[in-house]
Amino acid sequence: MRHWSYAKGHGTENDFVLLLDREGMLNVGPAEVRFLCDRHAGIGADGLLRVVLAKHVPDWGDDGDLWFMDYRNADGSVAETCGNGLRVFTRFLLNNDLASGPTVRIATRNGVTEATVLPDGRIRVAMGPVSVQDRQVHVRTADGNELPALTADVGNPHAVAFVDDIEAIPLHAAPTWSPAEVYPEGANVEFAQLAGPRRVGMRVYERGVGETRSCGTGTVAVAAAARLHTGDEQALPVTYVVVVPGGQVEVELTKAGAYLTGPAVLVAHGEVAVPEEG
Amino acid sequence: MRHWSYAKGHGTENDFVLLLDREGMLNVGPAEVRFLCDRHAGIGADGLLRVVLAKHVPDWGDDGDLWFMDYRNADGSVAETCGNGLRVFTRFLLNNDLASGPTVRIATRNGVTEATVLPDGRIRVAMGPVSVQDRQVHVRTADGNELPALTADVGNPHAVAFVDDIEAIPLHAAPTWSPAEVYPEGANVEFAQLAGPRRVGMRVYERGVGETRSCGTGTVAVAAAARLHTGDEQALPVTYVVVVPGGQVEVELTKAGAYLTGPAVLVAHGEVAVPEEG
Repeated sequence: MRHWSYAKGHGTENDFVLLLDREGMLNVGPAEVRFLCDRHAGIGADGLLRVVLAKHVPDWGDDGDLWFMDYRNADGSVAETCGNGLRVFTRFLLNNDLASGPTVRIATRNGVTEATVLPDGRIRVAMGPVSVQDRQVHVRTADGNELPALTADVGNPHAVAFVDDIEAIPLHAAPTWSPAEVYPEGANVEFAQLAGPRRVGMRVYERGVGETRSCGTGTVAVAAAARLHTGDEQALPVTYVVVVPGGQVEVELTKAGAYLTGPAVLVAHGEVAVPEEG
Repeated sequence: MRHWSYAKGHGTENDFVLLLDREGMLNVGPAEVRFLCDRHAGIGADGLLRVVLAKHVPDWGDDGDLWFMDYRNADGSVAETCGNGLRVFTRFLLNNDLASGPTVRIATRNGVTEATVLPDGRIRVAMGPVSVQDRQVHVRTADGNELPALTADVGNPHAVAFVDDIEAIPLHAAPTWSPAEVYPEGANVEFAQLAGPRRVGMRVYERGVGETRSCGTGTVAVAAAARLHTGDEQALPVTYVVVVPGGQVEVELTKAGAYLTGPAVLVAHGEVAVPEEG
């Protein structure tokens, strides 16, 4: 049994276990990630954020003194980055005096990005380019309804369906889509409901996870899709508020890419007993 | 913001946050319980176990030097006791040198009970009397199937339906039953599958919670129901193994009542920031 220090935090209830591993000495494989993210047998989280100096990351070619966000999904798989995770990661660095604000550069598998703490305490993160298209895609919900959807790419694939009442959508089972070949590697599916000028409600079914309380790239996809769907003619930059089950975020759409602003909270820290074989 | 020490543990993946509150000084109301048991915004658990000396419990009329298990459901409501929780509570007392084993007397809202640590590390808990009847009750699953069920009382009400394949039962929505008046205060519904001599698989939908990984009283109900359902003629005591999604337990049925034996694990401990208004 190994005893590791950990922290737990969330951004709009998208939650993470954080492990400080400055010198890259911890053996954090898929079994360890699955254990730590197990909500009944472990700590429980949507994903794990390992905090390691970039110089200890194989093949890192940029500034080695940056902190690298080694993000893993709860199922143990590796993912490039995570919008809500970046805010929680930033909060962890600042609260533990590992970086000084208000702007922190963070290394990710997608390259270096920037996070800025705003005067009100929220954190604003650069999310990169987003593209959205109307490609005549339909999503099919668990109750058999077929809904037209827009496709969006935020570094990962999304389908966004606008509906009158997101609460009425059954999300206990995965939505499907047609034509199937639009998403050869699967997609995150968002259901969006217009709630006011540039204000949108959203529920999401995350690829390989299920319904979650929030999804950072999903909120960016929904904002971009809402701009196209409503024929919003105001020139960039424009800001959308996206309300998710776990809270709300702001998405700025600019010519240089999207920015996501929202809360980040550290809830607990302590020591966890990690079984040797995971 | 208050900073409280906590531990997290589970018995067959029925999981608990534990708070040591020796002198009954912590203000743990429904809002605090809901926060601590929130799996995304808090720590996350099926329930909370406050560890307090019985002398500080209002109206406690027995030995005041016992440790009282103040059990709360994740929704903030008070419950009398909890079979899996008793094992985790016992493990916490022993690991923190608050009691000495192998047998520990524990105060609960149901009175004083005993827990014994076995040589293999599992913990055996007295569960009190259990009664089971065939009252021509049917349960109706989310896909509309009507299944005959036995009724059982383990201090709380249960319906036990024997099926050929528990994996095929949809439990994303609550089962119902008829006649409705059999359970005026609701029931926990177990689906049981015979898996060998005195070996039963079980899935459970807990009243007011949903599907869980395990339910201590449910395993006792299933063992007693299996004895009646299979016409098991061996005189008491008899022992059944009940396999739940989170592991397996042994239920001994005796003339004096039922005993539940299973694992209890402490996973983590640390400090949590509890918002003032919950």
